[in-house]
Amino acid sequence: MNKVRVGIAGLGRLGKLHAENIAFKIPNAELTAACSIAPEELEYATEHFGVTDVYTDFYEMLDKADIDVVAVVTTSGEHCWQIKAALDAGKHVFCDKPLGVTVNECKTAEAAVERHPELTFFLGFMRRYDPSYAYAKKKIQEGAIGKPYMVKAAGIDPEALVEGAVKFAATSGGIFIDMAIHDIDLMRWLLESDPVEVYAAGATFKHPEFREAGDDETGAAMYKCENGALGFVHVGRTAAHGYHVETEIIGTEGSLRISPVPEKNLCMIYDENGAVTECVSGFAERFAEAYLLEMKEFINCVQSGTKPDVTVYDGTKSTQIGFATTEAWKKGCTAKIQY
Amino acid sequence: MNKVRVGIAGLGRLGKLHAENIAFKIPNAELTAACSIAPEELEYATEHFGVTDVYTDFYEMLDKADIDVVAVVTTSGEHCWQIKAALDAGKHVFCDKPLGVTVNECKTAEAAVERHPELTFFLGFMRRYDPSYAYAKKKIQEGAIGKPYMVKAAGIDPEALVEGAVKFAATSGGIFIDMAIHDIDLMRWLLESDPVEVYAAGATFKHPEFREAGDDETGAAMYKCENGALGFVHVGRTAAHGYHVETEIIGTEGSLRISPVPEKNLCMIYDENGAVTECVSGFAERFAEAYLLEMKEFINCVQSGTKPDVTVYDGTKSTQIGFATTEAWKKGCTAKIQY
Amino acid sequence: MNKVRVGIAGLGRLGKLHAENIAFKIPNAELTAACSIAPEELEYATEHFGVTDVYTDFYEMLDKADIDVVAVVTTSGEHCWQIKAALDAGKHVFCDKPLGVTVNECKTAEAAVERHPELTFFLGFMRRYDPSYAYAKKKIQEGAIGKPYMVKAAGIDPEALVEGAVKFAATSGGIFIDMAIHDIDLMRWLLESDPVEVYAAGATFKHPEFREAGDDETGAAMYKCENGALGFVHVGRTAAHGYHVETEIIGTEGSLRISPVPEKNLCMIYDENGAVTECVSGFAERFAEAYLLEMKEFINCVQSGTKPDVTVYDGTKSTQIGFATTEAWKKGCTAKIQY
Amino acid sequence: MNKVRVGIAGLGRLGKLHAENIAFKIPNAELTAACSIAPEELEYATEHFGVTDVYTDFYEMLDKADIDVVAVVTTSGEHCWQIKAALDAGKHVFCDKPLGVTVNECKTAEAAVERHPELTFFLGFMRRYDPSYAYAKKKIQEGAIGKPYMVKAAGIDPEALVEGAVKFAATSGGIFIDMAIHDIDLMRWLLESDPVEVYAAGATFKHPEFREAGDDETGAAMYKCENGALGFVHVGRTAAHGYHVETEIIGTEGSLRISPVPEKNLCMIYDENGAVTECVSGFAERFAEAYLLEMKEFINCVQSGTKPDVTVYDGTKSTQIGFATTEAWKKGCTAKIQY
Repeated sequence: MNKVRVGIAGLGRLGKLHAENIAFKIPNAELTAACSIAPEELEYATEHFGVTDVYTDFYEMLDKADIDVVAVVTTSGEHCWQIKAALDAGKHVFCDKPLGVTVNECKTAEAAVERHPELTFFLGFMRRYDPSYAYAKKKIQEGAIGKPYMVKAAGIDPEALVEGAVKFAATSGGIFIDMAIHDIDLMRWLLESDPVEVYAAGATFKHPEFREAGDDETGAAMYKCENGALGFVHVGRTAAHGYHVETEIIGTEGSLRISPVPEKNLCMIYDENGAVTECVSGFAERFAEAYLLEMKEFINCVQSGTKPDVTVYDGTKSTQIGFATTEAWKKGCTAKIQY
Repeated sequence: MNKVRVGIAGLGRLGKLHAENIAFKIPNAELTAACSIAPEELEYATEHFGVTDVYTDFYEMLDKADIDVVAVVTTSGEHCWQIKAALDAGKHVFCDKPLGVTVNECKTAEAAVERHPELTFFLGFMRRYDPSYAYAKKKIQEGAIGKPYMVKAAGIDPEALVEGAVKFAATSGGIFIDMAIHDIDLMRWLLESDPVEVYAAGATFKHPEFREAGDDETGAAMYKCENGALGFVHVGRTAAHGYHVETEIIGTEGSLRISPVPEKNLCMIYDENGAVTECVSGFAERFAEAYLLEMKEFINCVQSGTKPDVTVYDGTKSTQIGFATTEAWKKGCTAKIQY
Repeated sequence: MNKVRVGIAGLGRLGKLHAENIAFKIPNAELTAACSIAPEELEYATEHFGVTDVYTDFYEMLDKADIDVVAVVTTSGEHCWQIKAALDAGKHVFCDKPLGVTVNECKTAEAAVERHPELTFFLGFMRRYDPSYAYAKKKIQEGAIGKPYMVKAAGIDPEALVEGAVKFAATSGGIFIDMAIHDIDLMRWLLESDPVEVYAAGATFKHPEFREAGDDETGAAMYKCENGALGFVHVGRTAAHGYHVETEIIGTEGSLRISPVPEKNLCMIYDENGAVTECVSGFAERFAEAYLLEMKEFINCVQSGTKPDVTVYDGTKSTQIGFATTEAWKKGCTAKIQY
Repeated sequence: MNKVRVGIAGLGRLGKLHAENIAFKIPNAELTAACSIAPEELEYATEHFGVTDVYTDFYEMLDKADIDVVAVVTTSGEHCWQIKAALDAGKHVFCDKPLGVTVNECKTAEAAVERHPELTFFLGFMRRYDPSYAYAKKKIQEGAIGKPYMVKAAGIDPEALVEGAVKFAATSGGIFIDMAIHDIDLMRWLLESDPVEVYAAGATFKHPEFREAGDDETGAAMYKCENGALGFVHVGRTAAHGYHVETEIIGTEGSLRISPVPEKNLCMIYDENGAVTECVSGFAERFAEAYLLEMKEFINCVQSGTKPDVTVYDGTKSTQIGFATTEAWKKGCTAKIQY
């Protein structure tokens, strides 16, 4: 069994998580190179993963490193050009979400992917690989709820992240670009239809700093889809109980609900507060398995030549929807969603 | 302890339920008269509740019956003139929801209530009296979730009621008038703010009969409130598992959720399907206690002269919101809500 | 519809609860007389229920009061002679649990019941009438779990009651007599078999006062039944979260579980503790409906002449099992259960 | 980072699971040798894990293979002599539960462990490493429930395994040896006290084959511990809903409960059955993470020289308790537990 050799670009919090999975938890992959503009991230790669083939220049890694694959986990603004460069250098590409920060960029990435049908491109919408979400999709495909026609989604960060989010507010693109992209992808994936119109609004009741920075603390968006299905997405930043990601899918014969209680584990406590289930603290805890499973799937796709379920077009579309939602939110009206 | 003497108008399904509560379950009330245009309903009143003072004409009951109070449980179109007539005849009035079917009617009722400050007028938004909803309100008032700023509500009838709903579709006013009025009232009550704009949509994926009758199977509406709070209401008619009423209230310091699993009782079964909680079959089962508690509260208000929490204006406003929602749904756009 | 006229004996906490149900919540019953050795209880009856026909002597009530029925809610030691006296005076009898405090007493009550087949005798094992327990029984009878062969039961009082329980410890008969009688009855009822051997133990880890008074804080008993089925009963007095009554019934094809979370209502809170369900505070809150439904059933039995499901022999047997359990607990060994 | 070289003995279902973890999921371990009397198991090792250094003789592996560690996953009867031989050959040892099938054997293993304080011995009570159980232990150590004084445990295999269990019944040692060993270990671990007396019983209501083979379908045992704490263990083989492992720990200030609903994942379905949570199908699914985490812990102990929390004495004691429980079950009486 030959191992797929991976070079990782970006070793921030999420990059480290991916690197750990590639280096230690995927039998048919090995982490052989790393690229970062931050020297301490490269030191980390050497220390923790024994990666000595390190680069500060992305092109140099493409040129010199002994790799089959590039895992792009840099900041969002770098994604598209790195995808293009890596594909054109003959490397398979894993890229974390979002695909890009402008639709034009996304189109560039699309073109690169289309130029290289011989290579695997994988977009990191990891929630699709979470066992509970994957199970929901399977149940839908088996007909357990008939025809799905409505998705209600919530994604709420824990209060603990507020300070960082405020600092980041000016450049994040706002709450819908920053936070709703996963929910939007899930909605499209579960409904098998694209939204064509959106109405959105935001609210800030606790941290006026968000408003001051042109952002909001909470966002809500309602979608009408091409096939008549409906969607509702609620994103927020101030959950007291932890990290809350919940999705409901309603079909003609039943409905599915994923994690209404984002439980930390299967241990419940009965104490003076009542019957208490403690909750997960953040995305890394909630989606640890999903991050691993998506990377396994990517490596398997590379080895087998099968195409992943999630495509570059899913990336462009979620970005387009994110922008239309942001427009509706900013203008306080409805917006048509163009593809 | 003198008993409050009640004359009931309307003895359909809900009328019978109220009559039973008044006759047998409220110590300080007695059912002494009944009015209906259906002779079999009057026979029912005599047989089951021993009420022999029966009328086919509402005015005649007001004129002749030995009653302090009228309970109006007739069809919605009759509510307002009966409220007016009863108040002008010096009777306290309990009226089931909705207040009326047009805003003009509601204004007539408002005027009558204002003309008679000495009399108690009580509008039957019974969900406010359900122990779980009342508890949620109490928790909010105690500050348990800080400032509430978002309500997400769902009200879904069981599939079993579809046939009747289709038959009734042409005259019901559509799904938002027909079904969302309780959720709208809860939203206003829990947020303590009125919605000023609405976006709405409908969907029909199972029973095309609804569309043919100008109605929809499912409705979704998103609201912006005066104080910046947000609301989302989802109503439907095809729940496979029973009768589903669920509400979530999100505040700056926490959130509350009422009945995500509309459990029939506290008995769970583990069988080949998994761990199963059976669900309530309809509103009469889910809100049995709420119907009793609201009527007790009304009778207590009559005796003590205290004013009920729910007012005639709540009735008008929920009607206005219902109409604006219907407009948004029909036109496929947003609508401003005027009061 | 003639009303069944009830005289109540004993107006302590539970007596008041029964009196309220009889007086106000059961259409075909009326509370017409009351008997108590405590003058303030008789005043309460007059004030709250308008009962003016009051007695300090039980025999005098039997002799003079205009009643069809006696509801015996006195202290346990008075139950059996009052049952006997009331039946011999031609009155139907409702008696709260336990039937009696000695087996001999119970046999006297049995004889009286047998002497009067024309009269209704009803023993207040109200849990059988709780909607969740009644539903479990119905599911079993419908075959939902096949043949039931094991019951695991827990009954734990809230910490708040500890002080009273310690005070009462010397005379209560100990934790199994005092607390396990309901669980024992449920076990027999759900398994449809009688236990023939018991092993029991107690523990005191928080309030040494219980041990000093010859009692225990927690009790556990394991039973083998005549038909080979098994039972386990856990009783305690120090639940931090409220009043916890839980029962599991295991059958050949599935299992049932009643109230693993003794929820106060359907409102859940998400706050810094996690996802929290508040719990009921005591038996009066948990079994409010059961107390009402058992009394309604009794009154219906009186009127229709049908025999109640629960019999005087259920009372004797639960007492015998309670004593055998106590023996096993005190001696630290197994005990045979004789009937 | 040097990798710990592991030779595995036994590659049945559980052996394969451990081999997979060692080979692919633990960065600081590598699977370098395998031993089995079944040729197809050795082929499996070569094919799936690339292990070419294979043996049919355990001693030969100890003698020739380039290994630091032996993982003993053979049938229970082989455990103790292999532990002894491996330790005496200077290898660290991981041994799956149970330690042995007789107390004498266990004592031999104890002596070997004591002879080699320089080596790590790790006993595979993997449930202790399950995140939910580990969390429960941590909460107890933090004082969240005060002093724990009662454990109630259930371990029920899915109906699907019945056929195999019947076939194995004659030689398995009976239901308590076969199934209760994990629950017994958890009870000791969570209560921090050893049971000194046990009362036990079995029942067979569905598959008479168990009785015919001298075994039982269901077992129940109640324990008194040295410090006065109490335990109850229920094991069974016929769960309709899947694999059910549940534990409750009751303390002076609260209680903990682990997996009352052995959910497959976080996806719930609402359908005509009600609100349904599907359940795990078996131990490999339920404890996948625990198996990995225990092996990681073992490898870390080997590298760091720290001693694992679980000791060889835990293995002996659980065996002794298992035998005493079996005696009580067989004789239908209580049994003292000797250590």
